[in-house]
Amino acid sequence: MTFHVYLSGEIHTDWREQIIAGAEGLDVVFSAPNTDHASSDDCGVAILGAEDNKFWHDHKGAQMNAIRTRKLIEEADVVVVRFGEKYRQWNAAFDAGYASALGKSLIILQQPEHDHPLKEVDAAALAVARTPEQVVQILRYVQTGDLPVG
Amino acid sequence: MTFHVYLSGEIHTDWREQIIAGAEGLDVVFSAPNTDHASSDDCGVAILGAEDNKFWHDHKGAQMNAIRTRKLIEEADVVVVRFGEKYRQWNAAFDAGYASALGKSLIILQQPEHDHPLKEVDAAALAVARTPEQVVQILRYVQTGDLPVG
Amino acid sequence: MTFHVYLSGEIHTDWREQIIAGAEGLDVVFSAPNTDHASSDDCGVAILGAEDNKFWHDHKGAQMNAIRTRKLIEEADVVVVRFGEKYRQWNAAFDAGYASALGKSLIILQQPEHDHPLKEVDAAALAVARTPEQVVQILRYVQTGDLPVG
Amino acid sequence: MTFHVYLSGEIHTDWREQIIAGAEGLDVVFSAPNTDHASSDDCGVAILGAEDNKFWHDHKGAQMNAIRTRKLIEEADVVVVRFGEKYRQWNAAFDAGYASALGKSLIILQQPEHDHPLKEVDAAALAVARTPEQVVQILRYVQTGDLPVG
Amino acid sequence: MTFHVYLSGEIHTDWREQIIAGAEGLDVVFSAPNTDHASSDDCGVAILGAEDNKFWHDHKGAQMNAIRTRKLIEEADVVVVRFGEKYRQWNAAFDAGYASALGKSLIILQQPEHDHPLKEVDAAALAVARTPEQVVQILRYVQTGDLPVG
Amino acid sequence: MTFHVYLSGEIHTDWREQIIAGAEGLDVVFSAPNTDHASSDDCGVAILGAEDNKFWHDHKGAQMNAIRTRKLIEEADVVVVRFGEKYRQWNAAFDAGYASALGKSLIILQQPEHDHPLKEVDAAALAVARTPEQVVQILRYVQTGDLPVG
Amino acid sequence: MTFHVYLSGEIHTDWREQIIAGAEGLDVVFSAPNTDHASSDDCGVAILGAEDNKFWHDHKGAQMNAIRTRKLIEEADVVVVRFGEKYRQWNAAFDAGYASALGKSLIILQQPEHDHPLKEVDAAALAVARTPEQVVQILRYVQTGDLPVG
Amino acid sequence: MTFHVYLSGEIHTDWREQIIAGAEGLDVVFSAPNTDHASSDDCGVAILGAEDNKFWHDHKGAQMNAIRTRKLIEEADVVVVRFGEKYRQWNAAFDAGYASALGKSLIILQQPEHDHPLKEVDAAALAVARTPEQVVQILRYVQTGDLPVG
Repeated sequence: MTFHVYLSGEIHTDWREQIIAGAEGLDVVFSAPNTDHASSDDCGVAILGAEDNKFWHDHKGAQMNAIRTRKLIEEADVVVVRFGEKYRQWNAAFDAGYASALGKSLIILQQPEHDHPLKEVDAAALAVARTPEQVVQILRYVQTGDLPVG
Repeated sequence: MTFHVYLSGEIHTDWREQIIAGAEGLDVVFSAPNTDHASSDDCGVAILGAEDNKFWHDHKGAQMNAIRTRKLIEEADVVVVRFGEKYRQWNAAFDAGYASALGKSLIILQQPEHDHPLKEVDAAALAVARTPEQVVQILRYVQTGDLPVG
Repeated sequence: MTFHVYLSGEIHTDWREQIIAGAEGLDVVFSAPNTDHASSDDCGVAILGAEDNKFWHDHKGAQMNAIRTRKLIEEADVVVVRFGEKYRQWNAAFDAGYASALGKSLIILQQPEHDHPLKEVDAAALAVARTPEQVVQILRYVQTGDLPVG
Repeated sequence: MTFHVYLSGEIHTDWREQIIAGAEGLDVVFSAPNTDHASSDDCGVAILGAEDNKFWHDHKGAQMNAIRTRKLIEEADVVVVRFGEKYRQWNAAFDAGYASALGKSLIILQQPEHDHPLKEVDAAALAVARTPEQVVQILRYVQTGDLPVG
Repeated sequence: MTFHVYLSGEIHTDWREQIIAGAEGLDVVFSAPNTDHASSDDCGVAILGAEDNKFWHDHKGAQMNAIRTRKLIEEADVVVVRFGEKYRQWNAAFDAGYASALGKSLIILQQPEHDHPLKEVDAAALAVARTPEQVVQILRYVQTGDLPVG
Repeated sequence: MTFHVYLSGEIHTDWREQIIAGAEGLDVVFSAPNTDHASSDDCGVAILGAEDNKFWHDHKGAQMNAIRTRKLIEEADVVVVRFGEKYRQWNAAFDAGYASALGKSLIILQQPEHDHPLKEVDAAALAVARTPEQVVQILRYVQTGDLPVG
Repeated sequence: MTFHVYLSGEIHTDWREQIIAGAEGLDVVFSAPNTDHASSDDCGVAILGAEDNKFWHDHKGAQMNAIRTRKLIEEADVVVVRFGEKYRQWNAAFDAGYASALGKSLIILQQPEHDHPLKEVDAAALAVARTPEQVVQILRYVQTGDLPVG
Repeated sequence: MTFHVYLSGEIHTDWREQIIAGAEGLDVVFSAPNTDHASSDDCGVAILGAEDNKFWHDHKGAQMNAIRTRKLIEEADVVVVRFGEKYRQWNAAFDAGYASALGKSLIILQQPEHDHPLKEVDAAALAVARTPEQVVQILRYVQTGDLPVG
């Protein structure tokens, strides 16, 4: 019973590494978008040629990144979406909506101060976690039935 | 050839009214979420009973609103998502992702200063408009073939 | 924005009539299974011939009723499932699961004493109501935005 | 020709173990929900924090369990649903409806005294078995063509 | 609650007319393939030009007829397939399989002497009727709840 | 039994008008892309602003036209694709592939000199016609059963 | 590029063995229904108990066999359906229709004397073969590009 | 994270070999249609028998090739479609439309002189490349995050 888990959203902290390390030993295959900010922004023009207009610069990059992200979301059983402290993170919310419409199990990872603006996103999720450790505990439980020892 | 157009997102300006007025005479049926902020926030507890915990207060409301929004997005041919100047608007981005996964034609309505953070959302759209008038012109064109007179 | 609402489950009280009466004036089309117990049980053999074996008697009837219920659930936007005080009501829970897998918006109508055994069903719902009046209020709200006057 | 078989329903007897033991040597991969009653009930609050309200206690647990059960039902070729002597078992009937709407092959395992209340569930099934041994015989037959030696 | 009912199969007796006449007053829209044997066989070459090879003569006609039959089966709620006394009627069985895979409610209309060779087709149906009158009674019952007066 | 027929492809002759005129009296609703070459090419920049780069000029226009064409193809029962004498007409072949993957009934309208390069497209079609009149005859036949009088 | 090929239909000659032997060395996984006539007819009652009524005897068996056949058809890339000299073979035509609606590539294997009654089935196929050897040659060609040496 | 990439279109230059060689070391599984012109044209008649009429000669071959191409496109994550200098290449555009409707990530490989006639095809793509090397760079980037060293 391998779980495929896509880790979407915030790219400025090590939450993905924490989850992956914590889940060691579980039968989970993790995937993620390209989390390198610079290459993620510039991939389109770096490969397909420069654009004078920043809008198309961004467009080429975002479409190229979509080749990866669509495949990984479609192959995932569980999509974890992390909303961080900063930035607008509309791509994270977009991924959550995309995954929800595909019927994926959503886990949202966010701090309580965002509960109200994230209420529609949370309402589509099967769990709202506060820490990467809780995400690991959920994955362990749904796979093995083991709960954290109080 | 009736177009069903769902108007998602920002609820603090009259952009929906502008589009609806501008599209008068076209064979377009518009729909929208409940755009009254107060009732949208409190519907869950107003009908199903109060909650001590604000998280569940929000949850009940957001799930109740989803009864309406899911139906309308699923029945739409075109989903217009407006990102305004303020607030996090994660529900708007969620709707965009949801609509995209269902194969709806997306039109994003946003100001240039948000081009970069919205690039993944824009990359899934068939048009990025700056004004409600442009949205009306798109709807008129795709339905009648008429372009704005220069 | 017509809502198609299927009223599934308990057939021994007048909850359907209460909802239909309460929703007068709304743009809602209600549908339901055959709620006459006798004909629902015997339709198969009454039309297609008697069976010695009660199992097949029931089977012919249940399959015949499925011609109606499948169509109505598939055409519904919202499926309301009522669990009453008595009987096992497995067909109600079956309908809830069927509707959930089809992505319908589920509203469960049940008393608090059943909260625990119904937790998996409730977890798939967008609202858990206690009275037919609450169901009416939800339908009114999602269609018109009007909340009950406190 | 590996069969993926999900064993849903009653958790108080050893019917799953009987089936798994009986099917030894067949190319069948079995899966099941978490069958430990205590952790199944409390997983939500154990990981994500306590709730004052028992309804939300149950809700968090039931949604967390759904991460596992949805994946396993979606990946199954055959869903066996066991209805036992006791309890309301609405989750079993919900699973049957969910699996049926996804087009899974359903096998219902139940005693004759429940034939009438289960008639709608049985009508959606491809087999109604009375003993775990019969389920094993079905799995052996559909995979190998071998029938039990009279 | 309009039912769309497609009447597939045997074209040499007046069973369709009997059903349509019997169902007068019900909210049922009936459809059928072209039941004129000559034009059904020759439509392809009559419109698109003669073929020397009888195989392609048949092929052009059968594909042209499929434009109609696919649309009507896809739009149907119920597909009634009649197997008559004579001929091989493989197209009837093909339609039954096609409708079954699309999740349509199947009613098979056939005489008892064909029960054994039709057992796989019947096993996919929700009713096996012996007379057109029984089909009418089923349609009346699933729509109105009325059973034939004994 | 209304047929929805989308007329895709060549825009330099009056084949659409011939079909629409010929089909008068049939229960057919025709639709088509914007067939005005100039506005079809320039719609994107006319509404959303000029582009220095011709590639993006074309891109904005093509995506805007897709809002119309996707909706119409998805709603069609039959897609007629006309390949003319001139130009590359890759959009016509693209529409044929798109319609084919959606399971639409395809009718290809083309001259014999293109039979070989169109063989893959024709192989996905239910009819290959040479004249608009033949398309009309097909539509009349599949709707009414009437063949042209020899 | 493994092809999954389901071999449906006639069970009285060794056509399956011929195809499997001929395809040795190809990357093809073959599957088939239970081709033992006796066990195929009696499986239902042998496992689940005798029936007085032959109709239900057949029904139980046919539904049990469907557990196998549905899975195998759904997993197949190519469905080969063989129509033999004798019997009505409605289950073969049913499988062809079922596979066609699922978008499987159909190959029909039949003698020329059945061309006319099979024209609707053939019209849904991508190849109509006359010998098992031709089926092998098709499978070899689509996988390797090698044609039989004239 | 294996990518399945189907290489569609032009068969007269070695662009496929360039991409496959360039992608060595990546976790990519490439597939392609039969690119041998002669066998691709004649496969139908070579296996299933000669046709007097060239149209049916082509038809039998094109349908046989479709057994391969449909499977490979359906299994692909990414479909690369190459438009060359010569010929009409309608099958390439057909494949692009087919892949697009299935939601595959499209990469178009074409020279700038075809930008205008390919604008509808390009508008459905996530990248428009000019050289096989760029396609390799895209595949490397979406899989590993590595950009070409400037």
